[in-house]
Amino acid sequence: MSKPISLAIIGATGGVGSAFLAALPSIVLPPSTPRPQLIFLSRSKKQLYNKDYSPVSPEDLASSSSPLLSLPDLAKYLSTSPNPTVLVDNTSDQSVAEAYPLFLKSNISIITPNKKAFSSPLPLWNAIFSAVTRTALVYHESSVGAGLPIISTLNDLVRTGDQVTRIEGVFSGTMSFLFNTFAPASESASSPGKWSEIVGKAKAAGYTEPDPRDDLNGMDVARKCVILARCAGLKVESTSSFPIQSLIPSALESASSADEFMQKLPNHDDEMESYKTEAKKQGKVVRYVGKVDVENNKVSVGLEMVDQGSPIAGLKGSDNLICFYTKRYGSNPLVVQGAGAGNEVTAMGVLADLVKVIERLG
Amino acid sequence: MSKPISLAIIGATGGVGSAFLAALPSIVLPPSTPRPQLIFLSRSKKQLYNKDYSPVSPEDLASSSSPLLSLPDLAKYLSTSPNPTVLVDNTSDQSVAEAYPLFLKSNISIITPNKKAFSSPLPLWNAIFSAVTRTALVYHESSVGAGLPIISTLNDLVRTGDQVTRIEGVFSGTMSFLFNTFAPASESASSPGKWSEIVGKAKAAGYTEPDPRDDLNGMDVARKCVILARCAGLKVESTSSFPIQSLIPSALESASSADEFMQKLPNHDDEMESYKTEAKKQGKVVRYVGKVDVENNKVSVGLEMVDQGSPIAGLKGSDNLICFYTKRYGSNPLVVQGAGAGNEVTAMGVLADLVKVIERLG
Repeated sequence: MSKPISLAIIGATGGVGSAFLAALPSIVLPPSTPRPQLIFLSRSKKQLYNKDYSPVSPEDLASSSSPLLSLPDLAKYLSTSPNPTVLVDNTSDQSVAEAYPLFLKSNISIITPNKKAFSSPLPLWNAIFSAVTRTALVYHESSVGAGLPIISTLNDLVRTGDQVTRIEGVFSGTMSFLFNTFAPASESASSPGKWSEIVGKAKAAGYTEPDPRDDLNGMDVARKCVILARCAGLKVESTSSFPIQSLIPSALESASSADEFMQKLPNHDDEMESYKTEAKKQGKVVRYVGKVDVENNKVSVGLEMVDQGSPIAGLKGSDNLICFYTKRYGSNPLVVQGAGAGNEVTAMGVLADLVKVIERLG
Repeated sequence: MSKPISLAIIGATGGVGSAFLAALPSIVLPPSTPRPQLIFLSRSKKQLYNKDYSPVSPEDLASSSSPLLSLPDLAKYLSTSPNPTVLVDNTSDQSVAEAYPLFLKSNISIITPNKKAFSSPLPLWNAIFSAVTRTALVYHESSVGAGLPIISTLNDLVRTGDQVTRIEGVFSGTMSFLFNTFAPASESASSPGKWSEIVGKAKAAGYTEPDPRDDLNGMDVARKCVILARCAGLKVESTSSFPIQSLIPSALESASSADEFMQKLPNHDDEMESYKTEAKKQGKVVRYVGKVDVENNKVSVGLEMVDQGSPIAGLKGSDNLICFYTKRYGSNPLVVQGAGAGNEVTAMGVLADLVKVIERLG
């Protein structure tokens, strides 16, 4: 019987955090492996922990009166835990991401869906991965495509000596939904509607951020491309290092609110319609695509005309699709497809990482 | 610095074995992890090892005069190796598979693409997995879909507490090629040709086994379904426990040779043509599909009519495609697609397993 892993959870009560805690009791561990123990939980302005590292219960977090620890104090507290310790960061907080090197140097492993750490300027990436040791690990499957096996597959390709030449696909569930609806690969009897109507419907259904410009600016896709490019070995400085095509009409960038933006968006439907028409002339459809050209050290994010018969054109709903082109796989890529957003599938990626970390440290 | 892993390779000079040894020096290991050391190599009727467990070189295998060890003697020899030891079985040999429980009980981990161990009658599966410990591990990614992340994805789904309801797809590169050619989803100007002609072309190109009946009997797909079903939790007794549709016309089962079979196959083209015509009437195409209905405890292997717009219908070349339907993923499956056969991609799956085992044991 080995030692139990101690878990510290930041963002314990958010969407992903709640799904993580709900599913934690169901994880299946190897024989003779003790269950992980929660020793620290936090949400905004509340923390729960015991000085002697004894386990805590999520239901006590709301009423906790534990004094708040700063991130450096938390690293110090966890560094003297008697058991191997893992910090699960279920936030999308930049300041937590920036503290990862400190945690790693304190021999604390990191598991997170937080894209910030891996897509911020290159020095943070370098600081994180140069602090990794055999007992201070970093796993971040859900930073791209939620629970889909994207990062693990890319790491397997790289670590077994394959040469990844190109990665491309649809990395945003919101963009996927918008374009699958706006320009379906197979024509149906009824018209899909104008671009602004589709954005409006997506917003109403909760498929976009509260301000749809936070999706349409392409930054989410750009961040995921930075992560994939770096995992494939490219030294991408930041999201400012390559072209990102924003779908926010320049006249609407300064709209003072999401409502004003949505109200004026119909004035710009012609532009998106012309992309669609142009694609159709070529027997293609328009999609919002992220591309990492590893061989030529180029990253790009924006609209592409793709063949109607291609896997990207055939996507349904808000599914993601990632194609890995490699030397070993030749002309046909290795493809992973499925839901790339949602609390449960994001938490699944975090839990899968946790099982692997327990297998390595427990 | 930890101890190096000792590697024993059975089937060192076959197609997968050669690709494995060629790529072994390129694997990327975590910081401060020593490279694995080859301490035992075998091919048919030759073995190479030193009594003191010192490393051996593949180029010395052909001229080796090491006395041949039986499988029990090999287990005994490896059990006293001073370092954590991994047996890589790159054969498809039933007798090696049957010895896995013995190796595991001797604290030797197993990595293999060999389907036999996991698709033979259930007692062998139970004997293998009940012998797994924290230091005697079993990894078999390449037993289904070669290097595609199939087994690891299924294990992640199960181990994070998702409920896999259904697994279906095209699990044979040969069957994929035959049907993608015979009944393409999008009609081209030229006729694809008769079934027997396509089987003949595939045989000539080396896409089938030397005797195409070894593909057309469906057993390869059935074995993969048994493995997936068991990983998903079903207690499937053997490949005899469910219907397997053979594509060998019953009149040709007793043909005395592959040549005689190929010569007489054109007499049976009408039957395959009628499947194709029937599918077309329904706006579908015919494909050879494996299905594991986890919810209803049912496995089946055979011809299916699939929608022309479905991912299975759209497969190219000899690609595999596996759809995982789960509670978390809802109506749209998690899909993995790509080359599911070939020495290099099979060896890649074995090497990816090796990296994981070294991370756990090294």
